[in-house]
This record gives sequence, C-alpha cells and structure tokens, in this order.
Amino acid sequence: MQNKFMRRAAPIVTLTTDFGDGDYYVGAMKGVILGIAPEAQLVDISHQIPPQDVLSAAFVLRHAACEFPPGTVHLAVVDPGVGTRRRPLAIQSNGHLWVGPDNGLFSLVLDCADSRIHEIARPDLGRPDLSSTFHGRDLFAPLAAHLCRGLALADVGPPVADPVRLDESAPCKSANRIAGHIIHIDGFGNLVSNIAAADIAPWGTALHIRLGDCVITELCRTYEEGELGEPLALIGSADLLEIAVNCGNAAHQLGVQRRATLVVEKL
Amino acid sequence: MQNKFMRRAAPIVTLTTDFGDGDYYVGAMKGVILGIAPEAQLVDISHQIPPQDVLSAAFVLRHAACEFPPGTVHLAVVDPGVGTRRRPLAIQSNGHLWVGPDNGLFSLVLDCADSRIHEIARPDLGRPDLSSTFHGRDLFAPLAAHLCRGLALADVGPPVADPVRLDESAPCKSANRIAGHIIHIDGFGNLVSNIAAADIAPWGTALHIRLGDCVITELCRTYEEGELGEPLALIGSADLLEIAVNCGNAAHQLGVQRRATLVVEKL
Amino acid sequence: MQNKFMRRAAPIVTLTTDFGDGDYYVGAMKGVILGIAPEAQLVDISHQIPPQDVLSAAFVLRHAACEFPPGTVHLAVVDPGVGTRRRPLAIQSNGHLWVGPDNGLFSLVLDCADSRIHEIARPDLGRPDLSSTFHGRDLFAPLAAHLCRGLALADVGPPVADPVRLDESAPCKSANRIAGHIIHIDGFGNLVSNIAAADIAPWGTALHIRLGDCVITELCRTYEEGELGEPLALIGSADLLEIAVNCGNAAHQLGVQRRATLVVEKL
Repeated sequence: MQNKFMRRAAPIVTLTTDFGDGDYYVGAMKGVILGIAPEAQLVDISHQIPPQDVLSAAFVLRHAACEFPPGTVHLAVVDPGVGTRRRPLAIQSNGHLWVGPDNGLFSLVLDCADSRIHEIARPDLGRPDLSSTFHGRDLFAPLAAHLCRGLALADVGPPVADPVRLDESAPCKSANRIAGHIIHIDGFGNLVSNIAAADIAPWGTALHIRLGDCVITELCRTYEEGELGEPLALIGSADLLEIAVNCGNAAHQLGVQRRATLVVEKL
Repeated sequence: MQNKFMRRAAPIVTLTTDFGDGDYYVGAMKGVILGIAPEAQLVDISHQIPPQDVLSAAFVLRHAACEFPPGTVHLAVVDPGVGTRRRPLAIQSNGHLWVGPDNGLFSLVLDCADSRIHEIARPDLGRPDLSSTFHGRDLFAPLAAHLCRGLALADVGPPVADPVRLDESAPCKSANRIAGHIIHIDGFGNLVSNIAAADIAPWGTALHIRLGDCVITELCRTYEEGELGEPLALIGSADLLEIAVNCGNAAHQLGVQRRATLVVEKL
Repeated sequence: MQNKFMRRAAPIVTLTTDFGDGDYYVGAMKGVILGIAPEAQLVDISHQIPPQDVLSAAFVLRHAACEFPPGTVHLAVVDPGVGTRRRPLAIQSNGHLWVGPDNGLFSLVLDCADSRIHEIARPDLGRPDLSSTFHGRDLFAPLAAHLCRGLALADVGPPVADPVRLDESAPCKSANRIAGHIIHIDGFGNLVSNIAAADIAPWGTALHIRLGDCVITELCRTYEEGELGEPLALIGSADLLEIAVNCGNAAHQLGVQRRATLVVEKL
C-alpha cells in the first residue's frame, strides 16, 4: 500500500451540539473557529442532540468522539446553564482535548488516571462582548480554535478537581438478575440499554429478557436473525444490550420511551 | 502559544440552502465545487432553511456567515424563481464573497458603502446543459468554485445597481412604545423578534412586554433566570429581543407563529 | 483567472447512510476514517436516507456522487443485512471508488464496460473485534480510508462477477403511452418519476399526464411557470419527469406516495 498524499494533516475540531441544523448557531461557531484557526478541519458529530439533553450528548461523545485520532479537539455545547455560574472547561483525556460547559457532558470520557481538567479563565481569548446566551460562539469556539493552534491546557485557567459528573444510574445486579433501563433510542428505533455485554456474558444464552409486556428468550447476533417485524435482543455496537425489530422500529412498535426498565434473568 | 500547523489554509466555501439533508441536491453541489476547486474547504451552514423562505435564509446568513474570515465564499441557494428571469448574482461585501439568486437573500449583508454587486453572465463557467430547475448545481456552485480559485468579481458579468431587497418591515416606534414582530423561531422554540437591544436599552428595566395573552414585565439576562416552564424575555445572541421558556419550548407553549406581533411599552 | 492556492488537494471521502444525524454512528465512522487517513477530506452527501431504503440511497448516489472529481472514494452504508452473509464490496467505476454492502446500493452507478468489483476480504484492515451490527464503523470506514491512502483495489479481495442489482422496474412503454411510477419524493414534495426526458422528448408538447386523479396537459420548463398552488409537470434536474406544485408541496397536496403510477400519453 502506497501513500499518494504526503501533506501534513489538518488539526481536527469536532462539533457536537443540540442546536439543530436550521439555525445560525452552528454556522456562527464554525466561522469563529476558522477565523482563528483557518487550517482546522471541522467535523460535525451531531447537532441533533435532543434540546438540553446532556446525557444523550455524553453518550454520543463517548461512542463517536473516542474514535478520532489523538490530538483531536472536541467542542461540545449542550448548555442549558449558559450565562449562569456553571464553569467553562477545557479537558485533556485519553489523548484528546475537550471543550464545553461543566455540566456532565464529558463524564463518560473522563479517565481519572489520565484526565487533566482546567476551568477556562481567559476572557482575552473569547469574544470581547461576551453574550449571556451563546457561549458556544463567544467562548467555547474561540477556545477550541486556540487549543487546536497549540495553546497549552495549563494556559487556559486553573485546574478543576471536581467536574460535574452525570448521576448515571448503573443497572441493579444480583446473582441471577439484572435490572437496567433504556438510555438511548437511535434513529432506527433501536432501544439501547445500560446493561453491558460483560454483565450478561457469563450466563451464555440461557436468558430471559423483559421490557414491559415484551419477553425475549434469546440473544441474536444480527438484526436479520430476528423474525421480520418481531422484537429481538442483541449486543449492539456500543457493547450494550439492545432491543430491536428486524426491519422495523422497536420504539414505535413497543411504545417504549427512554428510562423504561429492562430486566434480564438467568434461566 | 505556538502554532503546530504551518500549512496554508484552504479557501472556504460555505453552503446555505433549503434543500434539506435527504436529497442529492446538496451532495451534487459539493461535488461540482470540488471538481473545480479541489482545495476548497466546504462548510455547511444550513440546508434546513424552510422551503423557499428567503427571509429565513437572509437571517441565518446575516448571523452565521459574517463570523467567517475575510475571503470566504458564501454560496446560498433558496431559489423559488429558478429558471425564470431573476438574475444570478456574485457579490463582494464586508470582505466576503456571496453567490446566489437576486431575490433578497443577501439584503441583510449588503453594505452600501462597500458592496460590489455583479450579475453572473458567464455561461462558459457553468454547466453546458444548464437545467431550468437546479441552478445551484449548474450555475451557482461552479461560480462559487471559480471565485474561490481567484476569478475576479469584475470578470463575472456587468455590475448591478438595484439588487432585490427584502421588504423587511421595521418595528413601529414611538416615544414610549415599540411594536415589532417575531421574525425567527429557533430549534429550541425561542421566539426572536425584530426589536433590537438598542431600541429598548434607554428604557432600562422599566418595561412591559406583550405577546398575545402573555405579559412579561422584566428582562432576564440568561435563560435560567426565568422560572422553570414560565415565559421570559431577554436579549438573544443576535442582539434582538427574544421570548423564551426556561427548559421549555416557547413557540409550542405560547402557540406563537412567525409574524406574531410583540409590543414593548415603557412604564 | 489566477489560482491563489497551490497546495495539493486532499483526497475526498464522501459519506451516504441512513444513520440520521442524531446518533453516534456517523461520527464514529468519520473518526475511524481520519484515524487512518488524517489527510482525507470528508464530505457528507446524506445521512437522511430513509431507514434501510437501498433504492433511495442508490438514487442519491447516482445523482450526487457522480458529480465529484475522479478518484473520490464514496462510502455508502445502508445495510439492513449487516452481520449476515451479504458480501462487503469495494468497486471502481467511472473513475470513482465505492465501498459498501452488496445489496444493490451501487447498481445505478455500475458501468459494465468499466467497473471492477471486489469482495472485501481483509480482516486485517478492519477493526479487530468486528461487531455484528456496525460494519460501517468496523469494516467499511477503514477500507474507505485505506483506499483513499492508495490501497490497490486488487489487494482488497477476490473479484466479484455477480453483484446484487436492484430490480428496478423500468417504465412500460408502447408507441403512444408510457406507464411509470414515482421513485423519489424530494424535500419540497416534488414527485420524481422513472420516466426519462428522452422517453417523451419525441412527443414534444402534445402530452397528457395522469397521476391518480390529477391530469396535466402540458410540460413546464420551470417551477414558477405553473399556476400558484396548481400541479405542474416538468423535466427535473435528474432528467426525469417530475410532478410539482409552484410554491407548494405536491406530495402532500396530491396525497401521493412513492410507487404511485404515472401515465403519459401522446395526444
């Protein structure tokens, strides 16, 4: 295999927000970043995080952002507390940089051993007339751009020892039973739970899975293994137990919403 | 702060359309641009402008495009008159270049002192078999790409002295009262009016704001200052008076649509 | 015209999926590509293909991807059969490279004379712990990145002689009558049929077009030629006969769905 392209790669800045794709908010942030770091390569992760849903954003960051190469700057703005005293953060963790509000957004990607967390305290690097409602444009985008240009994390502001962490309720486990819940519903209507593959692996296939009225007694390997239109269970790509419908939408069909309880019992 | 990346930045072309994200239209335009200007950096501003809503597009361009660095080429295609005699334009204004139909799209970014406006009259630079329905692909995308490669504005076609301007109704002001209207509803349901911060600043906080049945008597600084679930007023990031609901959707909750009247009275 | 930018263009990788824009799926694929080919220029074509709708994706690829410059790598993942025995493919056709599942996705861009089709059989190039549910991230994205870096098609795996082709029902033609159907409904509600401009060109304007209860007796050149709010027929930008409504949504107004029959008769 031969490399046709020898030029230096551009530094990457990813964007994750709940701003939607129909407003000026995302475009304004991109413009600000490129004004400061014109060599940056902007990559949209998602702007369709449900409004103010910090957990959803944390989940998407956990499973998308971590695939990027080391050195990537991840700008994430889901910020119901904009303009209040919540701290703006810049973080180095797992070889990546993260910029956004201190509200739990980054709690699934923080690694205690490795993470360095700093409060952003450099008004000189943000917009002079900082608004109270759009720190994405006025504060976080400029900081992400400066980090992408080489600003040292220590120059951002003082270290933070107690970042906000999401109160993620872990599944409730006993010897033969795990009770978890649905933490994410994807665009296909697949219902992703907080029960990890490792939690149920020791039980093999002797399982009994209950979600509302729906009972499933085996674990499929692929979506197509299920009967057409029938609910099935499998380990999804996030390594979590997932309920789906082959060529259908499980959320609609089962009438399930986020936070619904899912119980797995060993037979 | 040290710059790790010394390479020359790519020329930026932004895209703003009402094409949505599910069709081939946006992809076709991107392909055409990169075919002519492979070094261009494409940046989506929005493809979710409501169909044929020129005012919405003008608002998004005003508040997003202007954040980009000088020299950026902004391609905007919201074009209900495609294939008719409306003129295709290329514009230089505020150090940026703008390409799109002459229907008012650019009227919020034109600066009389500085703007140079030209009609595109170079069939040789567009697609030989120009369609009647997709000038975004056949005419505007190629022109944006050529401008991005260095084509001089004067080489595009003859100057235009009378570009179409949106008949933007300004708010109606008297000594103690301003009557404006809602010009934009964002993805959070926040209701953005055409009443500028500067219009009401002299009155301080002695205000009385009325939108339908809803009466608000103070100006908040942040979304979180309002009571949970109650309407509040603030100056938004576009420097315009905005009605919002803390952790809620004001448009749904108040049943308000675009063009609704908003009245501010000095107490 | 002078070229201000002399740097080498980045290799392009386009993405087309049915993953939507609210999940981690697209972001994870982008991260994987940039991890392997940091110099790649990622371009979204669409992630709003209707779930598992291979025909829609094939249509979008046909009309968007082909506009890109030669050498572009097109990654397309609409993959209801993920984890089953359907083959993963890498294709060279029309000077472009294509990567995705063998389910008909590429059948509108395959050119018998020119296409070279290979099955991907290089587990060493994909993710070591290949999931059963997300080959977009684990297999197709890495392969697209390696092709973009110069991997030779022949090194991907054995040639394939019988790729799956969509059973695209062509319109039914007689001397004075063509019966086709609606194959695509765009974001404006325009109804795109499978009747090509060339099929009806010899009849000139002496036409009679029937779609359900709606009868149209002339061919417009632009959307604005129709009466405001009335259905009209024209040849769209894909060179296919299309039913639209001037400043309206034909699909909603006529209550038409995909697969509806459209009949054209010569008068």
